[in-house]
Amino acid sequence: MEPSNRQFRLAARPHGLPKPEDWELTEEPVGEPGAGEVVVQTRYVSLDPAMRGWMNDARSYIPPVGIGEVMRALAAGEVVASDHPNLAPGDQVTGLLGVQEYARLDGNAVMKVDTGIAPLPVHLSTLGMPGMTAYFGLLDIGKPQAGETVVVSGAAGAVGGLVGQIAKLKGARAVGIAGGAEKCAHVVEELGFDACIDYKAGDVPGGLSEHCPDGIDVYFDNVGGEILDAALAALARNARVAICGAISQYNATEAIAGPSNYLSLLVNHATMTGFVVSDYGARYGEGVKEMGEWLAAGKLTSREDVVEGFENFPDTLLRLFRGENTGKQVLALAASRAE
Amino acid sequence: MEPSNRQFRLAARPHGLPKPEDWELTEEPVGEPGAGEVVVQTRYVSLDPAMRGWMNDARSYIPPVGIGEVMRALAAGEVVASDHPNLAPGDQVTGLLGVQEYARLDGNAVMKVDTGIAPLPVHLSTLGMPGMTAYFGLLDIGKPQAGETVVVSGAAGAVGGLVGQIAKLKGARAVGIAGGAEKCAHVVEELGFDACIDYKAGDVPGGLSEHCPDGIDVYFDNVGGEILDAALAALARNARVAICGAISQYNATEAIAGPSNYLSLLVNHATMTGFVVSDYGARYGEGVKEMGEWLAAGKLTSREDVVEGFENFPDTLLRLFRGENTGKQVLALAASRAE
Repeated sequence: MEPSNRQFRLAARPHGLPKPEDWELTEEPVGEPGAGEVVVQTRYVSLDPAMRGWMNDARSYIPPVGIGEVMRALAAGEVVASDHPNLAPGDQVTGLLGVQEYARLDGNAVMKVDTGIAPLPVHLSTLGMPGMTAYFGLLDIGKPQAGETVVVSGAAGAVGGLVGQIAKLKGARAVGIAGGAEKCAHVVEELGFDACIDYKAGDVPGGLSEHCPDGIDVYFDNVGGEILDAALAALARNARVAICGAISQYNATEAIAGPSNYLSLLVNHATMTGFVVSDYGARYGEGVKEMGEWLAAGKLTSREDVVEGFENFPDTLLRLFRGENTGKQVLALAASRAE
Repeated sequence: MEPSNRQFRLAARPHGLPKPEDWELTEEPVGEPGAGEVVVQTRYVSLDPAMRGWMNDARSYIPPVGIGEVMRALAAGEVVASDHPNLAPGDQVTGLLGVQEYARLDGNAVMKVDTGIAPLPVHLSTLGMPGMTAYFGLLDIGKPQAGETVVVSGAAGAVGGLVGQIAKLKGARAVGIAGGAEKCAHVVEELGFDACIDYKAGDVPGGLSEHCPDGIDVYFDNVGGEILDAALAALARNARVAICGAISQYNATEAIAGPSNYLSLLVNHATMTGFVVSDYGARYGEGVKEMGEWLAAGKLTSREDVVEGFENFPDTLLRLFRGENTGKQVLALAASRAE
């Protein structure tokens, strides 16, 4: 008997934070793979801040998810049926599988991963999209030099935690900004940052003055809003700002708050460059190779924050926007227990 | 009898637009040049948007003008007395002479200019600070390529008018943004831009869609505010934004409005870089040489907007912020009649 497939579909475009009624949980048969297709049983769904943007009806780097469509998501799973010459049942893969228990899709749209190198969830974090985001955003845009000071917001998150670790591997000082004493302790003690500023405790400008006495050479921004403004005010001359995201603004119901201190770019001859990870699609191999080597050598800590249960998807997504995750937020499906 | 020197001094730090009572008109003897000094009789005072920033008590790229000090200004004039080996009475010079009829200062702080190449006011515009601002900001930060679309705000101003002309000389398309039909006609008909959008007539986003169907490759911003936001929303992939100034914000009494659309940098892998002209101080010679050649060859139009009378300084400065000037705003002193 063919398995049944539960799916979270976008029922309505959210206004502000997604509400339970913005989702519809549906169920349908999986179907057999067509020519060149595979059926993948999802084991881990990746929860990413960018997903909030995909829910808006707005022109962006990728079309929005349509109303009634299965929610788009990166995920990792196991091939259970294949009509693709290079993929066989038992293969572990990642791809845009969507928020569903099974995905039937073109075999060319998934990537086979080696769970001998690292467990499956790590292929959604350090060796996946967040890892490549940190690697290319920091090295290609931030260009940290030995002895420079790199500051990253969202430092306890999937991308931020890696940015600081890569900065250290390149000989720079790493200062994180994160919410809460526990996250800051994780960032300094487990990830090896030189310092971490707790924005929930207040005074980010004061923390930046204290930990960046010569100014910020590289600022990697994941959050936008007031923290971006505080960092801009503390730039060193010729600083580079990489704009990776703006999680503080993704659920804004008014216009996004732009950085009031952007004229600090003028005063400091500084540069602010935005990117999305797919800009570096052609160079992923390079990033996966070096990040994999660092991971194998014990030079990188990969931290995943795992919530269990497919039905918990809507609330698990909100953990990102409530700032509750430490490390890469993933949702483990029942199938993951098979590992 | 030694001439008397009238001076405009900063009497109070303005809140918003400078008011008449923020200035004090004083008079004192000029004095004789000390060792290495010259006395320069001012002929033209340069009125620049940056002067507003110098009046604030804020950390910036240059210290603020102190209360009671002669207002800082670039100016051009004639040496009338000299104790400097390389300068003699009759020499025409430019420098930070201040808003005063005579300046007594270190001869090394002024630059001798050749009025055979161009009249004295041109050395405050195309061959002076605005010219170097346009030249280095556009070419070093904007890096326009042949066939690309360059958009510049403040296109009828001293810097903006040159930016578009240089863009054309480099084979790019030039689209200006300026206030009013008369200025737009000047920009297109006299300066040779391909198009000019009248922001006072409304719809800047619509104008950008019409004149930049493939998006903006280089945006040179002099104004900030809503126009910067409209330009950000219309960027092409890999666009470069040069932040030269933000005249719409310099008299803000609330916090500066940051660009809400800054995440367009992210979507378009675009870069925003700020600068001040002094960043390129070591390369001025290069800029003056090429701009001078273009001017001599009739390839550049230098437009100065001249107001007469030293006592008109306070109101002439406001012309910049009311958007009344077309071309470089200068104040001609009585001494200029001698030319």
